[in-house]
Amino acid sequence: MDATPLTIDPENAFQVLSGLLDDDVRAVEDLLKARAASPVSVIPDLSGYIVSAGGKRLRPLITLAAAKACNAEDMVPVHCLAAAVEFIHTATLLHDDVVDESDLRRGKPAAKNVWGNSASILVGDFLFARAFNLMVETGRLPVLDILSNASSVIAEGEVHQLAVQGQLDLPTEDYLKIIEAKTAALFEAAAQSGAVCADAPPGHVAALKSYGRNLGLAFQLVDDALDYGGTTAVIGKSVGDDFRECKITLPVVIARRRGSDEDKAFWDRALNPDTQSDNDLPHAIHLIRSTGAAKDTLAEAQSYIEIAKKALMALPKSPYRDSLSGFADFCVDRAY
Amino acid sequence: MDATPLTIDPENAFQVLSGLLDDDVRAVEDLLKARAASPVSVIPDLSGYIVSAGGKRLRPLITLAAAKACNAEDMVPVHCLAAAVEFIHTATLLHDDVVDESDLRRGKPAAKNVWGNSASILVGDFLFARAFNLMVETGRLPVLDILSNASSVIAEGEVHQLAVQGQLDLPTEDYLKIIEAKTAALFEAAAQSGAVCADAPPGHVAALKSYGRNLGLAFQLVDDALDYGGTTAVIGKSVGDDFRECKITLPVVIARRRGSDEDKAFWDRALNPDTQSDNDLPHAIHLIRSTGAAKDTLAEAQSYIEIAKKALMALPKSPYRDSLSGFADFCVDRAY
Repeated sequence: MDATPLTIDPENAFQVLSGLLDDDVRAVEDLLKARAASPVSVIPDLSGYIVSAGGKRLRPLITLAAAKACNAEDMVPVHCLAAAVEFIHTATLLHDDVVDESDLRRGKPAAKNVWGNSASILVGDFLFARAFNLMVETGRLPVLDILSNASSVIAEGEVHQLAVQGQLDLPTEDYLKIIEAKTAALFEAAAQSGAVCADAPPGHVAALKSYGRNLGLAFQLVDDALDYGGTTAVIGKSVGDDFRECKITLPVVIARRRGSDEDKAFWDRALNPDTQSDNDLPHAIHLIRSTGAAKDTLAEAQSYIEIAKKALMALPKSPYRDSLSGFADFCVDRAY
Repeated sequence: MDATPLTIDPENAFQVLSGLLDDDVRAVEDLLKARAASPVSVIPDLSGYIVSAGGKRLRPLITLAAAKACNAEDMVPVHCLAAAVEFIHTATLLHDDVVDESDLRRGKPAAKNVWGNSASILVGDFLFARAFNLMVETGRLPVLDILSNASSVIAEGEVHQLAVQGQLDLPTEDYLKIIEAKTAALFEAAAQSGAVCADAPPGHVAALKSYGRNLGLAFQLVDDALDYGGTTAVIGKSVGDDFRECKITLPVVIARRRGSDEDKAFWDRALNPDTQSDNDLPHAIHLIRSTGAAKDTLAEAQSYIEIAKKALMALPKSPYRDSLSGFADFCVDRAY
């Protein structure tokens, strides 16, 4: 065990990790293409559209790096696993867009706006099934155990989120429970199963499981803060999506809790789809910033990042371990 | 091998099979309840609603009987498998109702009409994931292989069906390809995986695979004929569902092919959601009967039943084998 990791500039951490895993990333890309193939052309068309829509492949990258950090000898099953993780992620995106009625995904029209809700639902199901095909190819039941569990937890988190819609006094603990399920569970499973696929000892598997979980929590917190422009309030194209969908996220919970009666009334009106008006977003962003809600959401994220990085120290020193550490910093740094 | 099965009256075949497997069926019911549990109450509410909505549990019954016909020594993993098969079926029903915009399922309002489309999609995903949890518990990768493959084939079939919507001159071969995927694949996997779970020799596995596939084809053909009242044209509450959803099924394909120009024009207008009128169904039923389309669809089903029953003869004689044979007859007999 070595407690002094090489420090990687967060800005470059993503490139460094991708660079280290270049061949593996390419193998995964090939699998993503090959396993979405079907004589029913809507399937490769629709899945190709979303799979190649500029996703960063964060989750499969974590799987690959986790396996490498555990000295995986055979990367072939890890490639199948990493592709499976991305397919599960893609399937949830397709279903989320239908559930959230989102018209944009990664700056492009959502697949459902091109092919319709029905095709999005069914192609999501197809990719989900193909993910399990790929996992069978790893030849490891524990991998299937981890990811089938994660998949049911994700769906449970999504239903939970649906059930609290409009509950503006959502307790912080409930919010954290939801993001732990809908987001952190897949990051956790991606890292943990990568270690399992490398036949790592239980201590290393546990370390990567903790890394994934805490990174996932931080990732979602940052995402939720960024939806209101983070602390800089630069309104980019992805700002305000959650707001328009009336999602209850931590920045909102904090800002509303700290607000005046007038502010509370604003949130109650603005986060109701029937009474939200087109020009509510700037005031919402103002409140998120002035109450310190954005700053504190990011501080919460930072605390999970520290736990994630600390967990990595149980692993033997390697460029993969250091890159995973830098990658964690990268996930928060993008918010500043 | 014994070529003379006990003859079971088709009318009683379902009861005989259920009776033989009484304890096992109860164990499966307990699993279906236990594994749909969740602290997020919408999940057990919604899944309880559809799981207990009077489904006949045909697929898990086939899994149980297949394992017993192969002398399964330990039925505990088979119970998990049978519950998994039913969860997969339930998940597809939940998604189908959203895709088809069906308002009724088994005579009750569809789950989506009670809880909404979003909950139906996400609880479907949850049950699908739980199905894979249950399969992991069987401890057998080949079972996961069979059912993950079947699941992707089912989704592929559903997308295919969606893609040919409105194609009234659908070739019979394409129709058969669709029902082979969307229906027969799960019957096939249910029977085959039951045998695999019983550690049956390859010949017995192959026999049950063929039984399931051919039974599934026949089952869907009968279903499609029944949607137009079968050959009796008694209009029950489930008659006309496919017609109202403008589904292209074999009875329609045959009736249109054999019809006059006027009949063809009727089908083209009536199976278009924009031009269908409320009182088109009686004429559609009349044409399905008068052209012999219903009769010939059922004859097609009968030919698959014969293949299914013949396949069973590769198995050692047992009450389970004989019941499976009677069960096949039952599936067609319900149409007369």
